[in-house]
Amino acid sequence: MTTPSRRQLANAIRFLAADAVEAAKSGHPGMPMGMADIAEVLWNDYLSHSPKNPHWFNRDRFVLSNGHGSMLQYALLHLSGYDLPLQELKNFRQLHSKTAGHPERHETPGVETTTGPLGQGFANAVGFALGEKLLAQRFNRPELEVVDHRTWVLMGDGCLMEGVSHEAASLAGTWGLNKLVAFWDDNKISIDGNTDGWFTDDTPARFEAYGWQVVRNVDGHDPVEIKAAIDTALKSEDKPVLICCRTTIGFGSPNKAGKESSHGAPLGKEELEATRKALEWPYGPFEVPEEIYAGWRAGNTGLVREEQWNMLFDKYAAQYPEQAAELSRRSHGELPEGFEAAADAFIAKTQAEGQVIASRKASQLSIEAFAPLLPEMVGGSADLAHSNLTLWKASKSVATDDPNANYVYYGVREFAMTAISNGLALHGGFIPFDATFLVFSDYARNAVRMSALIPAHNIHLYTHDSIGLGEDGPTHQPVEHLASLRYIPNNDVWRPCDAVESAVSWKQAIVRRDGPSCLVFSRQNLPHNARSEAQVADIARGGYVLADSDGTPDVILIGTGSEVGLAVQAKATLDAAGIKTRVVSMPSTDVFDRQDAAYREQVLPNAVRKRVAVEAGITDFWRKYVGLDGAVIGMTGFGASAPADALYKHFGITAEAVVEAAKAL
Amino acid sequence: MTTPSRRQLANAIRFLAADAVEAAKSGHPGMPMGMADIAEVLWNDYLSHSPKNPHWFNRDRFVLSNGHGSMLQYALLHLSGYDLPLQELKNFRQLHSKTAGHPERHETPGVETTTGPLGQGFANAVGFALGEKLLAQRFNRPELEVVDHRTWVLMGDGCLMEGVSHEAASLAGTWGLNKLVAFWDDNKISIDGNTDGWFTDDTPARFEAYGWQVVRNVDGHDPVEIKAAIDTALKSEDKPVLICCRTTIGFGSPNKAGKESSHGAPLGKEELEATRKALEWPYGPFEVPEEIYAGWRAGNTGLVREEQWNMLFDKYAAQYPEQAAELSRRSHGELPEGFEAAADAFIAKTQAEGQVIASRKASQLSIEAFAPLLPEMVGGSADLAHSNLTLWKASKSVATDDPNANYVYYGVREFAMTAISNGLALHGGFIPFDATFLVFSDYARNAVRMSALIPAHNIHLYTHDSIGLGEDGPTHQPVEHLASLRYIPNNDVWRPCDAVESAVSWKQAIVRRDGPSCLVFSRQNLPHNARSEAQVADIARGGYVLADSDGTPDVILIGTGSEVGLAVQAKATLDAAGIKTRVVSMPSTDVFDRQDAAYREQVLPNAVRKRVAVEAGITDFWRKYVGLDGAVIGMTGFGASAPADALYKHFGITAEAVVEAAKAL
Repeated sequence: MTTPSRRQLANAIRFLAADAVEAAKSGHPGMPMGMADIAEVLWNDYLSHSPKNPHWFNRDRFVLSNGHGSMLQYALLHLSGYDLPLQELKNFRQLHSKTAGHPERHETPGVETTTGPLGQGFANAVGFALGEKLLAQRFNRPELEVVDHRTWVLMGDGCLMEGVSHEAASLAGTWGLNKLVAFWDDNKISIDGNTDGWFTDDTPARFEAYGWQVVRNVDGHDPVEIKAAIDTALKSEDKPVLICCRTTIGFGSPNKAGKESSHGAPLGKEELEATRKALEWPYGPFEVPEEIYAGWRAGNTGLVREEQWNMLFDKYAAQYPEQAAELSRRSHGELPEGFEAAADAFIAKTQAEGQVIASRKASQLSIEAFAPLLPEMVGGSADLAHSNLTLWKASKSVATDDPNANYVYYGVREFAMTAISNGLALHGGFIPFDATFLVFSDYARNAVRMSALIPAHNIHLYTHDSIGLGEDGPTHQPVEHLASLRYIPNNDVWRPCDAVESAVSWKQAIVRRDGPSCLVFSRQNLPHNARSEAQVADIARGGYVLADSDGTPDVILIGTGSEVGLAVQAKATLDAAGIKTRVVSMPSTDVFDRQDAAYREQVLPNAVRKRVAVEAGITDFWRKYVGLDGAVIGMTGFGASAPADALYKHFGITAEAVVEAAKAL
Repeated sequence: MTTPSRRQLANAIRFLAADAVEAAKSGHPGMPMGMADIAEVLWNDYLSHSPKNPHWFNRDRFVLSNGHGSMLQYALLHLSGYDLPLQELKNFRQLHSKTAGHPERHETPGVETTTGPLGQGFANAVGFALGEKLLAQRFNRPELEVVDHRTWVLMGDGCLMEGVSHEAASLAGTWGLNKLVAFWDDNKISIDGNTDGWFTDDTPARFEAYGWQVVRNVDGHDPVEIKAAIDTALKSEDKPVLICCRTTIGFGSPNKAGKESSHGAPLGKEELEATRKALEWPYGPFEVPEEIYAGWRAGNTGLVREEQWNMLFDKYAAQYPEQAAELSRRSHGELPEGFEAAADAFIAKTQAEGQVIASRKASQLSIEAFAPLLPEMVGGSADLAHSNLTLWKASKSVATDDPNANYVYYGVREFAMTAISNGLALHGGFIPFDATFLVFSDYARNAVRMSALIPAHNIHLYTHDSIGLGEDGPTHQPVEHLASLRYIPNNDVWRPCDAVESAVSWKQAIVRRDGPSCLVFSRQNLPHNARSEAQVADIARGGYVLADSDGTPDVILIGTGSEVGLAVQAKATLDAAGIKTRVVSMPSTDVFDRQDAAYREQVLPNAVRKRVAVEAGITDFWRKYVGLDGAVIGMTGFGASAPADALYKHFGITAEAVVEAAKAL
């Protein structure tokens, strides 16, 4: 071999993948073997990236939505010169390796997003492409297109079966994201076998119905056809492009190609040998000849492109210093100077004003206060703008080419909304928020989880947070959701009790860099609480003493959100009865649990075991604070349809119930 | 008025809806006013039902997928003569009324499924239509078509935006459910306003891509066009039918028709008066003239149809007594005689055999044992049949016309799978189960919740239940899912520790009539546990003493699933150290919590506070059993990609850790 053929370059992927799966005794060889030719053409001839600087801001984004084929991506990264040595591939799927079973952004340089849960990578990619479009229309100037990259995504039949693909494709079509190119790995095989029995969609027609350009009938093993298809895609001016590639899963395996047996298990030693013969690959496991490396790295013009871009950016910075500084700040995820001080001033003002409003309204006031300071904020709601109160004065739809476009009308698409929001956050340059009713966080559940796992710095805003929403009834009344969201690791859930806590929760969600926050707001008005400056400062600690007794309390009442008011009322009664009562407001159990032991002991002294928690959510969650001997006032079943006041009485979530429970301890 | 016009019949719906929303000061008048003409034609000219016997088995199923328009359905039920008096409509959205904010099956006679969470009613309807097809191909005989009904579903733009509509429509097309007819309320308005900015799909083309027959461009306010469209739909032989109806939301309201202002708020007194004038409706609020009632009830041939069907069924029973008995049994949701005894015998045999297998394998053995006894069992998996182990020897795809078809290849569509399963359960005649990896219960989360709320008697089978799945990594490793599913009210979660508990969990899920069960199984092998007969019997109580100390225990170890084995090992070490140790196996906390106080005290004596819980899920959940002073061994963050054994050590979930925690108490 002197100059390797394209097929040989692709075969390097195939054998790295099959060898790694064989070594790990687990994994999915079929997809990398099937998509190797497509990936080879894309990466060697088109992808604009910089292996030595995976964070180069104007790089193309590459997403492997069918993430079980992770070895395809690891092979690509390795062969292209990313910091992913062969040893890592040999350690595929082992503890502390950089080559997890599914691609994980926080583990592996060059992985743009964590994939595996099908369909979501595709939706993330829509977010990447939307991010590029928004930054381009804000920052680009004639002949100085400093934001100008594509988003490429590989997806399988499974991604296309998932509902989130519908939601995401529909939005991409509506927004005309022409720099988004998706490759469909049309191999007719999913884990259960030939897809004829469960996947009969006319996928090209379906995507045309979304307003996509569709390139049909591409032989996914013919580099010439693949190139022609990509060239066609590059010409699209106002539509995202789907390239439909017919491929053979497990391509090259004499006995398993085209069969589900190559999907999710090692080929086996014999079959792997047979595949080596069939593809004329005389090299041993994990052996990659220098010519192959050379072939992969010859085509790699990343560094040149990055350098060209650096020069372009310098010119831009010279002409548009303010914009350049802003883009640079945003791309590094830094908040504007003075943001924290401005936020604190707003919080102090909110405390001083003492408005009695719904926390969803308080949230809108916070957005109104913070968004003008944060051009990186891009928000939206799943068709509930006027209920979630997510619109602010400067909101401009992202469906326009307005340079300040910052608001997303997501339609009724909670799952894609959240996954697109993840994509926006990961692209860089944005602090996105998405919104729906708390109960419909269910529809987006795994994308919320992915926010926390990846992690993505975004904000999930949920209103109508309990039976307090009233007449819409149990289908719309969250009961288990607060606890369920809190149990997602690395997810900060906030349920503020008034306008002040609402403002603090917004600030904390914005300054948090290492994961998502869920901000949970009421439909109904909430009373204002008096606080000292120190108390206002302590809100950010997640839990604090809102109202105390003289000396050691006899009983501690712990509340969140709309129920803090009940605790405060109950304290008055208990105090009058000579029971020394402390009220702890606990807007974020996640944040409170991260405080040092001394602070936690100060708020909830271990010795004080008479504790009553009150929250209009599932009671069992609160056992972690009140133990076996405390009491919890809350929900133990589904809600009902009635005005909120009637429901609170009906379900016994009242100040009287708190008083009784405290007395009974 | 002597013989009312169709428009007048429809106007009765409009004003009942608008008046009820006005009285409740909350609700959605626009949709009922927009779809009244369609509903009037459908109910008066086509719907086969029996208002006095809403449970007549061969009735057409009617589903309001856009459930926020609940007053449409309540008006239809009232006008048609169901047991829903006018007073209930006047009490719309009030506590203890039969007219909840969204239609609820358990509240209102004639409501087939609970709707509101968009898109799911449509998926339920696919389940109804699948149920009809399966029963028809099993029971019908030439000229004795005892199962022969249609499923009609109304859906709005919101339903069509939701991803679940994609999954469900795709399956309905694949299965050729020609007796399913969906009406699209194409009014171009969702809550955020005109849908042009966020809903640009070519919906007819999209549904054609799924293999549906599409009737385009129907004027949804013209009874003649509506009738013609339905007549066309009735002729479909092998495709489900979408009828695209152009409508005006809030039809008749001079100032709010065609606008989002009619969507989700009362019209207001003045506008309601103006609407009365515009539609020439001289009657007061909630006033329905006798002629209108007569017009609605004249066309109602339900009783005749039911009587005809009863005669047909008598003939059928005479010729096919066994089949008739089986259909009757199944339609009443009764288990076959002897099922419980057979199940108990299988459980005893499993205890005697003591196989060391994965609980997913034990689950498959249970299916293999129970399914032959239960022709009503219809199972399936979201493309993970060989991982979930859901296939059994007699499995036959429902995509065939085999009379014993009982297995659903759902493809990668967890949400529609679960919602379709809900539909099958509600149709009657089935005990459905669905399956995926536990982590992907997230994708179906709200449909699981709906199972519990409706309630539907079905079974959600989840395998790969912890970090024990190993190399697939954190995207596939559930951490918070066990706790989150347990917090859904009325949902029984089981996580068995061996083959015996697995068999019991299956039996309990089958005999349970009033809600769903989630059966959660391991990927990896689990040790067998010795048990007395009494202990075997106590498994069904959700928690029981698996291994006890002599006399009062010093410490209680509580475990579930794969971690019970660790607790048993730890007990040996602790016993040897002179610490009297009890092991409680707790396969279902939900079921255990329902036991009487005496039993619970017997298993977990209040006085014994040295308690250690061990479960490879989020630790905080277990505070409800171990309190503030106990210990929990489990997960506090996401998992990782590595072989299972390495992960258990890495995360410190070991027998040694349990021993140490117990000693430290």
